[in-house]
Amino acid sequence: MNFRIRAAREGDCRDIQRMIMELAVYEKMADQVKISHEELQRDGFGPNPFYQCLIAEVPEELKSDEGHTTVGYALYFYTYSTWKGRSIYMEDLYVMPEFRGKGVGKALMASVARVCVEQKCVRLQFSVLDWNKLSLDFYMSKGAEDLTMEEGWHVLRFHGAALEKLAHEAP
Amino acid sequence: MNFRIRAAREGDCRDIQRMIMELAVYEKMADQVKISHEELQRDGFGPNPFYQCLIAEVPEELKSDEGHTTVGYALYFYTYSTWKGRSIYMEDLYVMPEFRGKGVGKALMASVARVCVEQKCVRLQFSVLDWNKLSLDFYMSKGAEDLTMEEGWHVLRFHGAALEKLAHEAP
Repeated sequence: MNFRIRAAREGDCRDIQRMIMELAVYEKMADQVKISHEELQRDGFGPNPFYQCLIAEVPEELKSDEGHTTVGYALYFYTYSTWKGRSIYMEDLYVMPEFRGKGVGKALMASVARVCVEQKCVRLQFSVLDWNKLSLDFYMSKGAEDLTMEEGWHVLRFHGAALEKLAHEAP
Repeated sequence: MNFRIRAAREGDCRDIQRMIMELAVYEKMADQVKISHEELQRDGFGPNPFYQCLIAEVPEELKSDEGHTTVGYALYFYTYSTWKGRSIYMEDLYVMPEFRGKGVGKALMASVARVCVEQKCVRLQFSVLDWNKLSLDFYMSKGAEDLTMEEGWHVLRFHGAALEKLAHEAP
């Protein structure tokens, strides 16, 4: 299939927001999505962007049933390992259902890996839900390691009232 | 115990590197640490720092058996949730064994939470090894959620040869 991968522009934020919601529906957590395209514009395209994004785009003649030519995205940011140094965390990788199985996801994933290598980042990390066997198999077939299975790492979070309470305990 | 929490300075990087190694020994993965204090200086104190760090410091009269007054640290960076927006990831939280049980870890944790709230970040995330019950109990008692247990999130990673191979598949 004819498609290309390019860096997202500010004008892509409505499409990115639409696909963020589609991904959350697939992950059965759509109620958790609170982000707007205005916030995505502010946080990704100001002087100190909080994230970077790559877009998969098809030509007009291959547009989706609903008229979209932006059919996938990979959103990532720079992180830091105190063991190894500069790293990348890929927050989302998504391809619209009708465009799957055509190499778009692989191309997005590989493009993030290329950024990682070019920017001298030594690790590319991301999170996958344990019931999402299709995605897990895809990543494992490409040589990913499952750190939760192999080393026992659990992801923990403070938010809402617990975060506020903790902040008030600061000396 | 008399101690204070302050932002790390470039001159703290030797102490930070020492404590990164002590933490890795505790986590039984000391062989994975490759970072030097020069890299920590370059990556944390340039124009676009990859990380932020808080230091716990005791007065000279309370220094450790080996003469250290820097007795703990919390290292974190800004991340991005496509569901909620700006977030913080705490990469490390460490207190030297002889200074534990005196409120230093709680003060470091609370100080990172305060930065999080002040910077309008809605989430504070971090990772804990499943056998590290002492730390897990501490975080859970403060209201943390275990996303691996509750929602099934696994942490995956590409690095080394798998990362290089993937990068070469980019279109």
